[in-house]
Amino acid sequence: MNPTRDALSGLRIIDLTRVLAGPFCTMMLADMGAEVIKIEQPGKGDDTRHFAPFQNGESAYYMNLNRGKQGITLDLKGQGKEIFLDLVRKADVVVENFRPGTMDKLGLGYDTLKEINPKLVYAAVSGFGDSGPYRLRPGYDIIGQAMGGLMSTTGWPGGEPTRSGTAMADVLAGLSVTIGILSALRHRDQIGVGQKVDVALVDSVVASLEIITQIYLTDGRIPERIGNRYESCYPYDSFTAKDGSVVIAAANDKLWRLVCHAIEQPELAFDERFDTNAKRVERHAEIKLLIESWTRSHNVDDVVETMLAAGVPASPINTVDRLVRDPHIAGARQMFVDMEHPKAGKTKLTGCHIKLSATPAHLRSPAPQLGEHNAAVFGGLLGLTADELAQLQLDGVI
Amino acid sequence: MNPTRDALSGLRIIDLTRVLAGPFCTMMLADMGAEVIKIEQPGKGDDTRHFAPFQNGESAYYMNLNRGKQGITLDLKGQGKEIFLDLVRKADVVVENFRPGTMDKLGLGYDTLKEINPKLVYAAVSGFGDSGPYRLRPGYDIIGQAMGGLMSTTGWPGGEPTRSGTAMADVLAGLSVTIGILSALRHRDQIGVGQKVDVALVDSVVASLEIITQIYLTDGRIPERIGNRYESCYPYDSFTAKDGSVVIAAANDKLWRLVCHAIEQPELAFDERFDTNAKRVERHAEIKLLIESWTRSHNVDDVVETMLAAGVPASPINTVDRLVRDPHIAGARQMFVDMEHPKAGKTKLTGCHIKLSATPAHLRSPAPQLGEHNAAVFGGLLGLTADELAQLQLDGVI
Repeated sequence: MNPTRDALSGLRIIDLTRVLAGPFCTMMLADMGAEVIKIEQPGKGDDTRHFAPFQNGESAYYMNLNRGKQGITLDLKGQGKEIFLDLVRKADVVVENFRPGTMDKLGLGYDTLKEINPKLVYAAVSGFGDSGPYRLRPGYDIIGQAMGGLMSTTGWPGGEPTRSGTAMADVLAGLSVTIGILSALRHRDQIGVGQKVDVALVDSVVASLEIITQIYLTDGRIPERIGNRYESCYPYDSFTAKDGSVVIAAANDKLWRLVCHAIEQPELAFDERFDTNAKRVERHAEIKLLIESWTRSHNVDDVVETMLAAGVPASPINTVDRLVRDPHIAGARQMFVDMEHPKAGKTKLTGCHIKLSATPAHLRSPAPQLGEHNAAVFGGLLGLTADELAQLQLDGVI
Repeated sequence: MNPTRDALSGLRIIDLTRVLAGPFCTMMLADMGAEVIKIEQPGKGDDTRHFAPFQNGESAYYMNLNRGKQGITLDLKGQGKEIFLDLVRKADVVVENFRPGTMDKLGLGYDTLKEINPKLVYAAVSGFGDSGPYRLRPGYDIIGQAMGGLMSTTGWPGGEPTRSGTAMADVLAGLSVTIGILSALRHRDQIGVGQKVDVALVDSVVASLEIITQIYLTDGRIPERIGNRYESCYPYDSFTAKDGSVVIAAANDKLWRLVCHAIEQPELAFDERFDTNAKRVERHAEIKLLIESWTRSHNVDDVVETMLAAGVPASPINTVDRLVRDPHIAGARQMFVDMEHPKAGKTKLTGCHIKLSATPAHLRSPAPQLGEHNAAVFGGLLGLTADELAQLQLDGVI
């Protein structure tokens, strides 16, 4: 085999997913070289084709999450069902993020699909997973964040439970189902039989809580919302600067003393009120004021530079405009990548964050137009003739 | 082969990781059946062995993230280096989360390790990744969240940028490096050569922002902090109830009308001020008050039950005490699992959230005592004698 092939070359994914969690998974698989065939509803497509923002009428939401995929249209009822089963026969993986039971109702549940392709890995993402009393409840990102406990621990003392600014439940589930698919494929390659991967938004959020749940399970204390500081050390928090906010992370005595010098208050380094981490955690409010008495008169970049020069971990709190121009993030790490789209023109998409040395992930092609690859897939892969395709289109099947 | 083996049976992972991002990755690999050999510093161990909360003196933080792993001690300098290389010869994967350059300084960088084991997959997690101008900056969770833009989009109008209540940058990086490892292993199995996987906390956070960055890249608008509502639809937000908060997610006109009936204000369903989603987004503050005029006089569970019965997606904002008792999450989905620990006694750990039908992940054994598996690994795997082990211990090598 060719050693320069991509990490996931040779994998064929049939992708029924819509909106975010599922498409985020298949986006990463496509970036790493899998062949992803995204099936959309004829005449309509993924809802996110109509989500703002738009560039020349094309949704940036859709274009970002669906780059590198082939797009076909197929009605999963009636005649389309047999065509879908033909695709499944030639696939390694099917991924869907319908509500549990939907595929079964279509007669296309895992039990059916594994009969026609025992090697198939079938992956499903849903709000609550495919078991348990809440199985059929609708699951959206905000419900995953709320139900999974994340909102209860995010925010400020006395303030409201707060969601993550991004659709974090969807993102966590998208990453997690990708791990499940790759693990199930590894097992399939060893023993020759696939299985079902079942990932819930809620479970994925719960798994992300790590120490938060352990605090309650061990000590019986419900973790409170404490803003940006952490319970275990101080100063390890955000601080207001002249033109924005910065983060300073001084987790031990040595770093604390370096902070005191950096903020031009060297006498604090010997102040007995603050000379142990436990005291600093207790007096965190006082310390915040002391540090801000200095940071408030300096720009974000100056504060960060001064701290880093002093050996203290620090960082700006980047807004998106800073992020996309950052020489490290946008430059060296290539986290924003140009992609020419036939209708939208030049776009900038988020790069793949998983950096592989020998087979680097990359954005292969712009997101498909609705049904763009119908001829290539139904003709090339399944051997349908042009006449048959025309008839299927006429019948609304594709 | 035995079809009942685990998904990742037969994989041997040499685990140099500490604290959170790396251990979270190898925890999932162990839950799915990989053999994980965690190397800790002789006499000291992973810092999190000393992180609260404790149960009978054992850290719940450590016990949760390191269950199912074998624990050995090894000083990576001097004599320990050769022993480490012997382990690498017998490994599929090495994972570390040191600052970039640390392994090179020890003479154990990827370029060295791949010479002695070309099939090795070498995975590194760090704050900023192993390239670019910030490569050597210290990276902690709060820095990943700040630098990667997540804090800037989380929080309330007029309020401060807010971190996620959990160590989300670590969690995202831990999930992402797991995907990288499994992808690189798949490629290795095809062509016989490993590679390096390089995952940064900052990149992982950037990748999670999805539409947030696209809003700026497409429209030039910096997304503001808007609390728990979303920009695209309303009412899709949190609401205060009598004894806590709930989430109601009514993303279209039909659901809005159902909400109006559920809150016993059916006349609102025909109110022209609110009859399109665009109007509702604009008048979100008014609608919040109207909905809360009802939710404030009902308990969380009643609100959720009423909404779900009416067909409206809704959920409690679970605090951790509710989470660990929830019949779906803790019961059916088994997200909290009992584990008997030889010193701590009965503990409850977070279950694996990736549900595989044929080879379910499970918690195999309690986290190791420091050096617990020295004899098993150095003796059993590398063939060292009891005398040699005793001498190594005397010399402080293990």
